[in-house]
Amino acid sequence: GLALGLWRRQAALEAAREDEEEKELRQRFMAPPVSGLRELRRRRRELRSRMELLIMETQAEVCRALADLDPGASFAVDSWERKEGGGGISCVLQDGEVFEKAGVNVSVVSGFLSEEAARQMRSRGKSLKAKDGKLPFCAMGVSSVIHPKNPHVPTMHFNYRYFEIEEADGTKQWWFGGGTDLTPTYLNEEDAVHFHKTLKEACDKHDLKLYPKYKKWCDDYFYIKHRGERRGIGGIFFDDVDSPSKEEVFQFVKSCAKAVVPCYIPIVKKHCHDSFTPEEKLWQQLRRGRYVEFNLVYDRGTKFGLLTPGSRIESILMSLPLTARWEYMHNPPESSKEAEILEVLRNPKDWVH
Amino acid sequence: GLALGLWRRQAALEAAREDEEEKELRQRFMAPPVSGLRELRRRRRELRSRMELLIMETQAEVCRALADLDPGASFAVDSWERKEGGGGISCVLQDGEVFEKAGVNVSVVSGFLSEEAARQMRSRGKSLKAKDGKLPFCAMGVSSVIHPKNPHVPTMHFNYRYFEIEEADGTKQWWFGGGTDLTPTYLNEEDAVHFHKTLKEACDKHDLKLYPKYKKWCDDYFYIKHRGERRGIGGIFFDDVDSPSKEEVFQFVKSCAKAVVPCYIPIVKKHCHDSFTPEEKLWQQLRRGRYVEFNLVYDRGTKFGLLTPGSRIESILMSLPLTARWEYMHNPPESSKEAEILEVLRNPKDWVH
Repeated sequence: GLALGLWRRQAALEAAREDEEEKELRQRFMAPPVSGLRELRRRRRELRSRMELLIMETQAEVCRALADLDPGASFAVDSWERKEGGGGISCVLQDGEVFEKAGVNVSVVSGFLSEEAARQMRSRGKSLKAKDGKLPFCAMGVSSVIHPKNPHVPTMHFNYRYFEIEEADGTKQWWFGGGTDLTPTYLNEEDAVHFHKTLKEACDKHDLKLYPKYKKWCDDYFYIKHRGERRGIGGIFFDDVDSPSKEEVFQFVKSCAKAVVPCYIPIVKKHCHDSFTPEEKLWQQLRRGRYVEFNLVYDRGTKFGLLTPGSRIESILMSLPLTARWEYMHNPPESSKEAEILEVLRNPKDWVH
Repeated sequence: GLALGLWRRQAALEAAREDEEEKELRQRFMAPPVSGLRELRRRRRELRSRMELLIMETQAEVCRALADLDPGASFAVDSWERKEGGGGISCVLQDGEVFEKAGVNVSVVSGFLSEEAARQMRSRGKSLKAKDGKLPFCAMGVSSVIHPKNPHVPTMHFNYRYFEIEEADGTKQWWFGGGTDLTPTYLNEEDAVHFHKTLKEACDKHDLKLYPKYKKWCDDYFYIKHRGERRGIGGIFFDDVDSPSKEEVFQFVKSCAKAVVPCYIPIVKKHCHDSFTPEEKLWQQLRRGRYVEFNLVYDRGTKFGLLTPGSRIESILMSLPLTARWEYMHNPPESSKEAEILEVLRNPKDWVH
């Protein structure tokens, strides 16, 4: 009787403590994590769990910072499941005062890949040996595109992701990818320098070679070949990074993820009340058209998503702007503000030395 | 003296007659043909010349019919050259009263293709034998997309094209492709029947098997896989057609090209003064977004153009609407007019029996 009573009390206390922890964790996130809080706590030392917590925290941090600037609007939060394994959480703010469309998406997906699909996932296209043709994999990431209303506030995109694939002999391949980049409608040199400097500082903590390398990779990746223009003024981009060590790359990715808010939010605050003309809004809409062209024609993530069975189309295409415009033969006059940004998109500059 | 005088007079008469002919031909077209009028007259019995005249006439016919409906607006006419060989004529009406954007493009391009590029041009992917790795080719066509302002007037697209490739042993491969299809914002059954019936009549003159075959091909081709929807309510589409004979296929293509105006113009006339609500305009903008998705992600012609060096980007992307919109998770309510058209896009119907 007494022993049973004690056991019951102890069980009740434990349950209360777990409830408390869950409540606290829930407050830190936009929704319960895909893998479940208990599971994440149970395997808290594994990199997969630490990365899932990082992407969840990044999602919440960015959403809160954006919501603070757009008090009238609020984020729709959709948790979704993928029937092939895993799921995600999409947070979208649409048609606010400050933001035209702001999406922050987390996905944690697992299952089996064909050797072909697995090779396509790595930018270096390494081949992987599967048992019975199928490779167990796990992919997780946070990705976001923020399209503001005011043409003097730039569009921002970031994405941080982690992959694991298990080969037939049990060896695990893993790699990280990611980046943060800015797409202004008009060039503001001060903003460009602030953005790149903040990213450089995040990189420099880990290795002085990273920023120059990933800045160039960004300029090369976001290239709209048929226009001869980059999508924006860049930032950093990297893929398929698996050295020096899992822990060190994770710490680097963490620094980058923590740099998103200080990179971007000061620029939004500075310009979200700037006045603008209908002509400036029109130029923004034409630039939005180019954004659509890059994402639908070239972006590896979008293309991979559209071709992957069971992927959630609404979460993939939330990167598209609310509105866009295409005019035949629109050519801004020489030495206009419109020509100024085009020049930088055609010939990328170094913003930090 | 007398003989020389007679010769001079005869030469002057001949020149005057040629000027007269040129004037007449110029009036029939939007601009002088790429191959030149003299050259076209000289080789008037060749199919290449007859096809070039047909696409030039079709361009002028369609532009005039559209301009008649939108008297305030006018077509910008750009003749352009391709440095690798050939050129084209782009006619674009932008931001009119009736049409948001209407483009009719002719291109007549020649030069050399790699074996790989040549194989990609044929939908059946036939391999071709080249001398020194290069195949002389000639490609010509007329293509057009008409985006009206009023959401009760559908978007229309057509394209008719002809290819010739010369193999190493001198044999010439040739084929025709083309089609005409309709993309309404709202379903109007009467219009759908009129459109398909006019196309069926054009096909039936040549072979009763053509309409059913090319109607299905159209539904299959204009499929936005990631949405599970077709781009519109179809029409006809065919590619890589090289039988029963060059002459017979040309006559069929001619009937299709001549059917463009009677297919579409009565529908524009019927609805261009219909009243519409802001909600209907919004739905049109969302459908324009899907149009962009199809053209940039799936359309073979657009993709081929974007990847071909020396192609004229402005002419390729003139198919994109002036404005488009993407909303996260937009789902029209059941049994609304918006759900009605979606149903038909998901499950194509037979409009003519």
